[in-house]
Amino acid sequence: MIRVGINGYGTIGKRVADAVRDQPDMGVVGVAKTRPNYEAEQAVERGYDLYAAIEDRAHRFADAGLETAGLVDELVAQSDVVVDATPSGIGAKNCELYEEYDTPAIYQGGEDADVADVSFNARSNYDDAVGADHVRVVSCNTTGLSRLVAPLREAYGVEKVRTTLVRRGGDPGQSDRGPINDILPDPVTIPSHHGPDVQTIFPDLDIDTLGMKVPATLMHMHSVNVTLEAEPDADEVRDLLAEQSRITVVDADLGIEGTGQLKEWALDRGRPRGDLWENCLWGDSVTTDGRDFYCFQAIHQESDVVPENVDAVRAITDAADAAESVATTNDALGI
Amino acid sequence: MIRVGINGYGTIGKRVADAVRDQPDMGVVGVAKTRPNYEAEQAVERGYDLYAAIEDRAHRFADAGLETAGLVDELVAQSDVVVDATPSGIGAKNCELYEEYDTPAIYQGGEDADVADVSFNARSNYDDAVGADHVRVVSCNTTGLSRLVAPLREAYGVEKVRTTLVRRGGDPGQSDRGPINDILPDPVTIPSHHGPDVQTIFPDLDIDTLGMKVPATLMHMHSVNVTLEAEPDADEVRDLLAEQSRITVVDADLGIEGTGQLKEWALDRGRPRGDLWENCLWGDSVTTDGRDFYCFQAIHQESDVVPENVDAVRAITDAADAAESVATTNDALGI
Repeated sequence: MIRVGINGYGTIGKRVADAVRDQPDMGVVGVAKTRPNYEAEQAVERGYDLYAAIEDRAHRFADAGLETAGLVDELVAQSDVVVDATPSGIGAKNCELYEEYDTPAIYQGGEDADVADVSFNARSNYDDAVGADHVRVVSCNTTGLSRLVAPLREAYGVEKVRTTLVRRGGDPGQSDRGPINDILPDPVTIPSHHGPDVQTIFPDLDIDTLGMKVPATLMHMHSVNVTLEAEPDADEVRDLLAEQSRITVVDADLGIEGTGQLKEWALDRGRPRGDLWENCLWGDSVTTDGRDFYCFQAIHQESDVVPENVDAVRAITDAADAAESVATTNDALGI
Repeated sequence: MIRVGINGYGTIGKRVADAVRDQPDMGVVGVAKTRPNYEAEQAVERGYDLYAAIEDRAHRFADAGLETAGLVDELVAQSDVVVDATPSGIGAKNCELYEEYDTPAIYQGGEDADVADVSFNARSNYDDAVGADHVRVVSCNTTGLSRLVAPLREAYGVEKVRTTLVRRGGDPGQSDRGPINDILPDPVTIPSHHGPDVQTIFPDLDIDTLGMKVPATLMHMHSVNVTLEAEPDADEVRDLLAEQSRITVVDADLGIEGTGQLKEWALDRGRPRGDLWENCLWGDSVTTDGRDFYCFQAIHQESDVVPENVDAVRAITDAADAAESVATTNDALGI
């Protein structure tokens, strides 16, 4: 059993904890949090040992009636791997702590790429992370693009990717975020950071990305163009994408018109927290025009990196090869 | 003076009426409406003669205390040109009426292209409409794309256009429209109707468009890619676009981040109804990567076709050439 510590128990950390718990070959040592809140209460409720991330504030958990198992240092010391799911920028500051205890660490896509030895997407470059000390699971959008680009590159070759990412303004729980009734180029400058980030996975890929922000909270939406090196017909590409285990090709018969219905579908299927771990790609949108491929895909920003974190745990500990790991993760989660 | 009748006094009709009234060489004969409401009240308030569009319902205006000058047939009979600003699909049904009185007519972009002899954008194909009987001013999005494509074609040649149109769900007054907190591919199939519609202006243009719908009401946002036949640098293209009278290149110093601030800017400038008749294109977004040009532009769906309708009046009556008409329209409106 691989002993996994989770440092940071917010949107990503709580999901990764549950996903790790559900695997046959790993377990959760505990989860670390800076302060008590409804998520900390639920961590205890779910039986996770709770560690205080900041020594000075550790007493606040007791004040709130939540028992802690110690400080984050103790969690790191006991873990074979730490998944750092702290807010963007904090992961880089935690590096030193993980090195102090010689515990390999997995960071999230909010950190700069140079926080880690390798940026990671299970479908695209699992082997690069085998035995590494510091691995960064790329962000939700980069994960979604990498999953799509990898099979297209293998099957047809990719000349250029051009993608517009229409991003949700904030997550459903982030009531301090906007916009309301506005559409913003974000950033105004082109490319957005997503293109260079995808290049951390595919260094030689020619990709331009444009970002926007809109008043929605449920998922991101990608408008994708890929100029291929071949001219496949749309049905062939759709079949190729449908074979990918972390791409759901949404059939027209389901009558799913947008992100709201995708989330309803996930909830109806009993998915924990209504999570959609896979890229949700509209089958009817798959179009080819000569060498140009187009599609729409929705990306669930809160959860698509969760299975990637689980695979990164196996890669960093050299516990399984890519195919085994992805199969085990998918099977345990019900992907 | 060209005598212009306005059939339909909603979002577009009321703006076209005011724009026509402000021109030195044309006047408003009257405006026709199907039913009394706040817009009809305002038409009377502004001094426009009000005509009833539906005979059976004409009494409703009197019931609401609004005096009418007659039925729409009388308006058409007295006009040199009619601008049909009725809801999509109604314009086609009105064709017969205009032909009965031998009155040339201008339709809006909600009608199918075959309603008219020519689809019209002043910057791109003014001359095609000179002396025509039926002219269709293309929709807001097609107008915005045509204004951008025309100078790029002339200066550099265009190999291919790929554009994602992130569309507002409804206008500010359309309280029955959605979405709320959702992002939808709209349509799911690719291309959206916009690409073929731009081809009514540039028949030989290679263009693929993708549409989305988001919870916003103020403006549409275009994420534009144009593969040019040359490799200009970004500054050169930005200068070219800034020279276009109906493209506003929004300077970074203004600190305008999205459609909300664009509309605030328009209101602060005293623009009627906060209208933005020009494409609003972020200067900092103008980017070139080899032959690929990129930019973001916002399109005010309620008003960008207004100056085009005014120019179409002059084209259809052969009252001025393109340059004269555009200059006169811009000068009268304060563009």
